Amino acid sequence: MKALQASYSAVDRPTAMRWKLSRTWGAIVAITFLCVYTALQLNIAPLDSLIRLDGRTHDNFAHLANHCAHIQSIAHHSFLERQQSLARTLLSLNASSYVAEPGANAAFFANVSKSQWWLSERPLLLVISPVIDTNGDIRTNVSVLTPAFEATRAKLLQIPSASDTAFTAWPEDTDPYSVAVAGMPQLQDGVIFVDSSMRKFIADGLQRAAPYSKVASAPVEIMRLRERKSPEELEIMKCANEATVLAIRAARQEMHFGMRESVARNLIEEAMLAAGLQGAEALTLFGENAALPHGSGTDRTLGKHDFVLIDAVGSLHGYSSDVTRTFALPGSTIPSSHLRLWDLVHAAQANALQAAKNGTITADVDAAARRTISDEGYGQYFTHRLGHGIGLETHEFPYLRGGSSDLILTGHTFSDEPGIYIEGQVGIRLEDCFYIGENGDAIFLTAGIGGPARNPWNL
Amino acid sequence: MKALQASYSAVDRPTAMRWKLSRTWGAIVAITFLCVYTALQLNIAPLDSLIRLDGRTHDNFAHLANHCAHIQSIAHHSFLERQQSLARTLLSLNASSYVAEPGANAAFFANVSKSQWWLSERPLLLVISPVIDTNGDIRTNVSVLTPAFEATRAKLLQIPSASDTAFTAWPEDTDPYSVAVAGMPQLQDGVIFVDSSMRKFIADGLQRAAPYSKVASAPVEIMRLRERKSPEELEIMKCANEATVLAIRAARQEMHFGMRESVARNLIEEAMLAAGLQGAEALTLFGENAALPHGSGTDRTLGKHDFVLIDAVGSLHGYSSDVTRTFALPGSTIPSSHLRLWDLVHAAQANALQAAKNGTITADVDAAARRTISDEGYGQYFTHRLGHGIGLETHEFPYLRGGSSDLILTGHTFSDEPGIYIEGQVGIRLEDCFYIGENGDAIFLTAGIGGPARNPWNL
Repeated sequence: MKALQASYSAVDRPTAMRWKLSRTWGAIVAITFLCVYTALQLNIAPLDSLIRLDGRTHDNFAHLANHCAHIQSIAHHSFLERQQSLARTLLSLNASSYVAEPGANAAFFANVSKSQWWLSERPLLLVISPVIDTNGDIRTNVSVLTPAFEATRAKLLQIPSASDTAFTAWPEDTDPYSVAVAGMPQLQDGVIFVDSSMRKFIADGLQRAAPYSKVASAPVEIMRLRERKSPEELEIMKCANEATVLAIRAARQEMHFGMRESVARNLIEEAMLAAGLQGAEALTLFGENAALPHGSGTDRTLGKHDFVLIDAVGSLHGYSSDVTRTFALPGSTIPSSHLRLWDLVHAAQANALQAAKNGTITADVDAAARRTISDEGYGQYFTHRLGHGIGLETHEFPYLRGGSSDLILTGHTFSDEPGIYIEGQVGIRLEDCFYIGENGDAIFLTAGIGGPARNPWNL
Repeated sequence: MKALQASYSAVDRPTAMRWKLSRTWGAIVAITFLCVYTALQLNIAPLDSLIRLDGRTHDNFAHLANHCAHIQSIAHHSFLERQQSLARTLLSLNASSYVAEPGANAAFFANVSKSQWWLSERPLLLVISPVIDTNGDIRTNVSVLTPAFEATRAKLLQIPSASDTAFTAWPEDTDPYSVAVAGMPQLQDGVIFVDSSMRKFIADGLQRAAPYSKVASAPVEIMRLRERKSPEELEIMKCANEATVLAIRAARQEMHFGMRESVARNLIEEAMLAAGLQGAEALTLFGENAALPHGSGTDRTLGKHDFVLIDAVGSLHGYSSDVTRTFALPGSTIPSSHLRLWDLVHAAQANALQAAKNGTITADVDAAARRTISDEGYGQYFTHRLGHGIGLETHEFPYLRGGSSDLILTGHTFSDEPGIYIEGQVGIRLEDCFYIGENGDAIFLTAGIGGPARNPWNL
């Protein structure tokens, strides 16, 4: 330091100035380098965020936030109507009660999802029973069987009910199922219907505690209460699916050749989160990797001859979206044989929509899509069912598949997702969800923002 | 800039030098501030990591890595022995097959855990059946029912079996349960036993496809094959539980007054990960927050009069640890009434261990701990069962609870975790797991590193 000062005092003023200035900038550069280096050593993620601070990608997603901002969650009175419908259905089936663990059915009837109460070996059960009051009117009894140990936490669950929800606590040294059955009305002459996704040991426990009743999975009359969506539910599902398409479109603007699948995936999930969707997940596959419908496990970069396949799922107020787009970036040179397959899948998707109507059978809709693809000789490459029911679960009953004779009815919602997968070469899937409208026809949930992709460059 | 240069040229040289130097340092300070500010804006975590770069906490956990490094995962031949035991048991019960979804039981018999195959609406089932060969010897048939669509991925599962594992694929347009039942040997005269944690719709499907068989939850003879641990399993479980205690001890060295629960939690989980445990989770509660056994949801700081309660779970080769310590930091002044409660819980834990022997009943062990606490007038504050079975699941059958008459046998493993919880005041829980040794006595899995805590300052 001393030597430097000595040499400094020996130079003329402009040189000293230049030296000083360069030292200032040197220090700035050195410290910036140190900061960046440290950030790199710690984790690459903060750097990604820093880069994003320039506003480029982040701002390009900001507009998505408005799309579903006006959509409300399910109203309190709607839960009461669902419970009332369930009570009437139970009575008509001569059933004493309906029992569900936390999950999609408990969420539908009483706002108790798995994210609100994680399943453990200690049963927490929603019990809904019909009661006929002194005027002969049907009332609905909503109760929750809770571990006594967890009763304080259980009472924090926001359970809509017409009268107060009863919390029945089972102490650790009792049989929880006996406690549950003791609280059920009209037990002697009825079936106990349970959610079919209940774990078997819970159903076994209820059956042991109610030996003179029959514990059985809820039949189709009860399942349809949730399968057939209300206009309120459809509004949520439309927006969830629209927002998912808008997020894929926005993310596509930020994609470029040479990008890795994992980076593109992050981009799309970021766009979906910006659009207000929860639990965003985007399967992202380039080129021949898309030929394995559920992914390859590698992390390929995007080339000029590759299709991009994005299968994106998110949720809005608990309702799931599910959209797949197979597309090309501007400047791509996709083999014409692949473009023909794209058109074929696109036609299959449209033909399935035409076939789906109130009163048709699920297998026939699958067949309409499959025929389109088989007629051109690619039937063996359409390796999965056409689609699934969708709502509070991403995949729910009923399914659009061969061999199934389930009836399609107004309010039903399905994914329509034909695909062609030629291993080592190409994978194409196009997916939009539809609902059966009041006039009995199928309408895409994404119709409000243009519906399905027009061509590989126009999503 | 121009004005600055003009004023600079008007001042004398030493002043200019000082101004220049201060500008240099100003720039350094400004950029450093900017870096730190940006890091803060992005996320506090990178800053934490920066602080950790001094090597203090990180190095203090490095020694933990060696503790279980020598422990092997379950050997291939052990899986074959388990399958063979299952086949013999099935034959003795006149059962044709055992069926399980991915989960703890499928992991035990064939290395198929839920983390290897996530449950969806499409059944993937492990089917194990006994077959008597032409020599009259019992052979074990291991097969996997897989969606045809996913067969390639299913075949990547590492399933040990004496002969080749058969993969039976069900196409999307077939009934998977009919396909499963068609592949079962000796169906006409046997029960089909299923894992009781199976979802009810799977069991329903099997029953529909096998109307002349009875589909039932596996009885205690089958459950005990997994409940009673082998010496190989006990070696893993000992090390997992020891490493958890060592991690809590090491993390305690880094704790200080004023620290938040969330920060302490991260510290403990980091120590557990350093010790080679997977899925580390540490419930961390200070002072009166520990009076709610599963947490309060607040993020309290640690005071001088507070106990720290850590309930830590991790896994080694799939086997779970579960350890709770309630302790004080050096320099604490814990109320003497709380210290007395600590001693009481400690005595209850020791008395439960004494009561647990080969041939005793689970309820009696719970009673031994409960009596210790009740005799001093605190029975109402011991609000949960004494403990649970532990192994491939953190909580598994059987349970140490009142009202249960399950038999305790050699090889059984349980948590022993009495507690006293006075809401708004204090919560104390002490937990070590034990096994029943060959001589019929209970031995703590943590015995190798000193066993249970000695006092609130010596863990």
